Amino acid sequence: MIYILFLFSLLAFTSNAAVNDFCVADLKGPDSPSGYQCKPTKEVTVDDFVFSGLVAGNTTNTFNAALTSAFVTDFPGVNGLGVSAARLDIAKGGSIPMHTHPAATELLIMVEGKITAGFMTPFAVYTKTLKPGDIMVFPQGQLHFQVNSGKGKATAFLAFSSANPGAQLLDLLLFGNSIPSELIAQTTFLDVDQVKKVKRRFGGRG
Amino acid sequence: MIYILFLFSLLAFTSNAAVNDFCVADLKGPDSPSGYQCKPTKEVTVDDFVFSGLVAGNTTNTFNAALTSAFVTDFPGVNGLGVSAARLDIAKGGSIPMHTHPAATELLIMVEGKITAGFMTPFAVYTKTLKPGDIMVFPQGQLHFQVNSGKGKATAFLAFSSANPGAQLLDLLLFGNSIPSELIAQTTFLDVDQVKKVKRRFGGRG
Amino acid sequence: MIYILFLFSLLAFTSNAAVNDFCVADLKGPDSPSGYQCKPTKEVTVDDFVFSGLVAGNTTNTFNAALTSAFVTDFPGVNGLGVSAARLDIAKGGSIPMHTHPAATELLIMVEGKITAGFMTPFAVYTKTLKPGDIMVFPQGQLHFQVNSGKGKATAFLAFSSANPGAQLLDLLLFGNSIPSELIAQTTFLDVDQVKKVKRRFGGRG
Amino acid sequence: MIYILFLFSLLAFTSNAAVNDFCVADLKGPDSPSGYQCKPTKEVTVDDFVFSGLVAGNTTNTFNAALTSAFVTDFPGVNGLGVSAARLDIAKGGSIPMHTHPAATELLIMVEGKITAGFMTPFAVYTKTLKPGDIMVFPQGQLHFQVNSGKGKATAFLAFSSANPGAQLLDLLLFGNSIPSELIAQTTFLDVDQVKKVKRRFGGRG
Amino acid sequence: MIYILFLFSLLAFTSNAAVNDFCVADLKGPDSPSGYQCKPTKEVTVDDFVFSGLVAGNTTNTFNAALTSAFVTDFPGVNGLGVSAARLDIAKGGSIPMHTHPAATELLIMVEGKITAGFMTPFAVYTKTLKPGDIMVFPQGQLHFQVNSGKGKATAFLAFSSANPGAQLLDLLLFGNSIPSELIAQTTFLDVDQVKKVKRRFGGRG
Amino acid sequence: MIYILFLFSLLAFTSNAAVNDFCVADLKGPDSPSGYQCKPTKEVTVDDFVFSGLVAGNTTNTFNAALTSAFVTDFPGVNGLGVSAARLDIAKGGSIPMHTHPAATELLIMVEGKITAGFMTPFAVYTKTLKPGDIMVFPQGQLHFQVNSGKGKATAFLAFSSANPGAQLLDLLLFGNSIPSELIAQTTFLDVDQVKKVKRRFGGRG
Repeated sequence: MIYILFLFSLLAFTSNAAVNDFCVADLKGPDSPSGYQCKPTKEVTVDDFVFSGLVAGNTTNTFNAALTSAFVTDFPGVNGLGVSAARLDIAKGGSIPMHTHPAATELLIMVEGKITAGFMTPFAVYTKTLKPGDIMVFPQGQLHFQVNSGKGKATAFLAFSSANPGAQLLDLLLFGNSIPSELIAQTTFLDVDQVKKVKRRFGGRG
Repeated sequence: MIYILFLFSLLAFTSNAAVNDFCVADLKGPDSPSGYQCKPTKEVTVDDFVFSGLVAGNTTNTFNAALTSAFVTDFPGVNGLGVSAARLDIAKGGSIPMHTHPAATELLIMVEGKITAGFMTPFAVYTKTLKPGDIMVFPQGQLHFQVNSGKGKATAFLAFSSANPGAQLLDLLLFGNSIPSELIAQTTFLDVDQVKKVKRRFGGRG
Repeated sequence: MIYILFLFSLLAFTSNAAVNDFCVADLKGPDSPSGYQCKPTKEVTVDDFVFSGLVAGNTTNTFNAALTSAFVTDFPGVNGLGVSAARLDIAKGGSIPMHTHPAATELLIMVEGKITAGFMTPFAVYTKTLKPGDIMVFPQGQLHFQVNSGKGKATAFLAFSSANPGAQLLDLLLFGNSIPSELIAQTTFLDVDQVKKVKRRFGGRG
Repeated sequence: MIYILFLFSLLAFTSNAAVNDFCVADLKGPDSPSGYQCKPTKEVTVDDFVFSGLVAGNTTNTFNAALTSAFVTDFPGVNGLGVSAARLDIAKGGSIPMHTHPAATELLIMVEGKITAGFMTPFAVYTKTLKPGDIMVFPQGQLHFQVNSGKGKATAFLAFSSANPGAQLLDLLLFGNSIPSELIAQTTFLDVDQVKKVKRRFGGRG
Repeated sequence: MIYILFLFSLLAFTSNAAVNDFCVADLKGPDSPSGYQCKPTKEVTVDDFVFSGLVAGNTTNTFNAALTSAFVTDFPGVNGLGVSAARLDIAKGGSIPMHTHPAATELLIMVEGKITAGFMTPFAVYTKTLKPGDIMVFPQGQLHFQVNSGKGKATAFLAFSSANPGAQLLDLLLFGNSIPSELIAQTTFLDVDQVKKVKRRFGGRG
Repeated sequence: MIYILFLFSLLAFTSNAAVNDFCVADLKGPDSPSGYQCKPTKEVTVDDFVFSGLVAGNTTNTFNAALTSAFVTDFPGVNGLGVSAARLDIAKGGSIPMHTHPAATELLIMVEGKITAGFMTPFAVYTKTLKPGDIMVFPQGQLHFQVNSGKGKATAFLAFSSANPGAQLLDLLLFGNSIPSELIAQTTFLDVDQVKKVKRRFGGRG
């Protein structure tokens, strides 16, 4: 009993500052430049801080690869905390083609198999074949790729320096839309025929 | 005389806080994640805050275009201030091909002529023909292009949300290096022949 | 058809991460310390990223000057991106009087005419007469001014390190309100008569 | 009359940029990672920028100490500005036990009496007995304590590098909840009996 | 002995991460946009985290006021932590005239006496007479003042949202230098005679 | 040959902006609040972006656990990028006792086995038993723990929202130093005997 009163005074002690040092995303509300609005603390449960789907994705697709994300839209507990994760599975012969994360650095932690990965700058290329125990960093906004260069499947975990890293596949950007092929050709120095050919593959028109 | 003493007491008043609210780059020293070290305040002159070369560049090159920069390495007064600028000149028929600024947003302020510009996301394309009086924003890290779509030359000023925005031409990243053509082909879905052809243009090997 | 299925698998590939790397302001909603809430991506059009009113303002006013802004409230695409712009027109003999941007650095890009500009610190004054091709930086929060010192009109573009830079004219702060003239005099060392005289000019009372 | 028109042109001059450089918290709305939404400027009064309760708290409690806060939830004017304050009163023999502010640095400004304070890192301990005129900094996230080591009461003001610093008392974290005592013992190397004993004091179960 | 070995294994456990979560300024080295370089951890003592001079300053000067600072240059432990402090003493009849902190928000914590303080925006004035127990916030970059409006001396503590807040007295900026009086008059709408008169007071020339 | 000239003009095109969008740590130089100085770009190799030691650590120690870090001091490529990683191995019966990362959020990605993990706030406890496929977030500065609750060893990868996250074991902070046991007891509400007992275990004195 005395403890109850005691506890009460303790809580009173910090009552005006009854904040937590996190802001779980209320995904039903609007987003903002700093992230989603905070869910009321009373409604927060441990399941907001745990995501249970970081498992192997289905690699039966054109890339023979799958990326399973644990970004803020999957995992509301990371809102505003500047970090998120994903799992990468690449079947034999598959790859994650050239892509960028416009506002996030990526770390790749090798778990199984062999991946040849790299990023390019105007001045140099940084490429390496990675095995379990290796970790590689792809600085923010750099164009990069990951190719399964081993004899079996390859698995890695990815961490990002943003709760909501975009993922932009270069082919989708260049060839998955209706920008006229001539304009794409002019601004990439590719041949128009080549542009049209790859557009057909990526669903683009024009 | 009295004023001198008086002034002295004023300066004493803030003497421990004798800082300025800027940090002009000492370009001879090392860079850091927040920018260059500060030049001692005594050595700072107005010329550190003024750059006089934001003039038309020579457009006699493969792009028929020129970008003249006023970045921290040109203009040490912007160090640490999160902003810089450039001038863009595109001759008739020229363009700034696909490129990204990995860590900066770009504003394009049209001054003369006509430019068709755009950026692409995995979900949509945002493209527009701009005339003097128009300003367009290319959010951080997005792949974008600018084409002179008018009948004469085109001029624009650019502002960036970084004192030191990188500029990465997609062609240089993909074709200006010695990554094996097969690997480029695999990670872009371009034909190997096409890769080799454009590599010859951009000085790449392999 | 196969392409449609193919595209579908591509989209599925990034479906939980279906974010864009921008946050166009929903200007009907509330502001926050990081900017406005994001407009739903589906409602975003290229016109959110383009502002077409960066034209000469009317300089028939007490300053013989006009500032035309492309801030987030004019130009929702810059929300959260840390950059915005404006156009400055100063008629012969005019000026932008002493002012500050409390939370933004300003870049001034000269386009036409001649402007004498400067900013002051407790330790030094940095002032220069600028001509086309010159660019000057006014670090965040510094008191600064721009005077047309040429024989015709002067035009410049401004870039700011904030999507929503305030603009505070010193005269409006000191003389455009109802703070008692005696208090203004005491805290500026100006004569009370002088304070009252300038107050009449700037609509102040008291 | 002319002044009214004149004033009007002045206001027009900045009309699209009619922003203030602050964002007073609308405490009725949701919080976000960058703070609360902004109250409409028209509804802001000087009382949003002034908090009048930074007075001595009641030290008749288990710690013989009181912390009176001026955080954003008390003082909406600090929203988004990265700073807040508190007042600390410690009766003779009292203390603020071990605690952390997970996302804020603390400054302690001594006003009256004597406080022995310190923080610990894995490599060193930084502890000092403070008297009026002393100020001590406790870097962000460090475990620290303050003990009245004088012969009378002690008073200090605290400033924080956050508008909403959490305050986490170590005893509440370890002993004020229902985590099984065995688990607490295992992860602290304390004896289970000790854990149960202190749990009774801090209202914990299990 | 066993404990020594034991401790060794503990330290080894974190040996590659032997960092502290602070960066005490090495004031002999250069400054940078994020603050001073870190002093080697071995050389850091508790005295880097304590400053003992936050005492009453000498108010026998033109303002009848004194500001005693505990900024990073006085108090190296606050380097990089985004917070610092000062003490304000204003004798009867004195004031801190109009000034700004270009890159810091200020909190004023009243300790003794009565201060009338305020800040001005283009749209409103926020002014209040403060007594002990009151705290007022002056948002970043705003022009503000503090006047002793009581019958005795007044004392306050200040906290800032920067380790190195500038302090810019308006009179020094306008009248403490050699900018031609005509130019000051043109850009402030003050009379030239008034400018020259106040310049004599603040040591200005021209 | 023509390509060489051509390439030259391309490089000239961006010559003043010859920056990369990363800053590999020069670990021989001083640290700063934003990270280490940048190694000259010419000296950077792919090995700065790859760390090959993220392997199982030796769990033969008092915790039956090992943390292997890939922080900036191990892995210079992450400097300034706001992200790093580690590998966690916990033998059967082992645990990572209560600890904090004062300036970083932690993500735990389960790879093998079973870990019961949790963090505590003054208002609630968030604890969960994790299996492969689960990921949990521990927000910045929160006290947390990880216990192997399975029948074999457990392995996880950790990602942090900082290139240089501190790791502070609560026992080392409280019991690994020479703070008098009475003072520790007073500020933790533990018994003095208990403090002395655990101090012997963690190498503390006093």
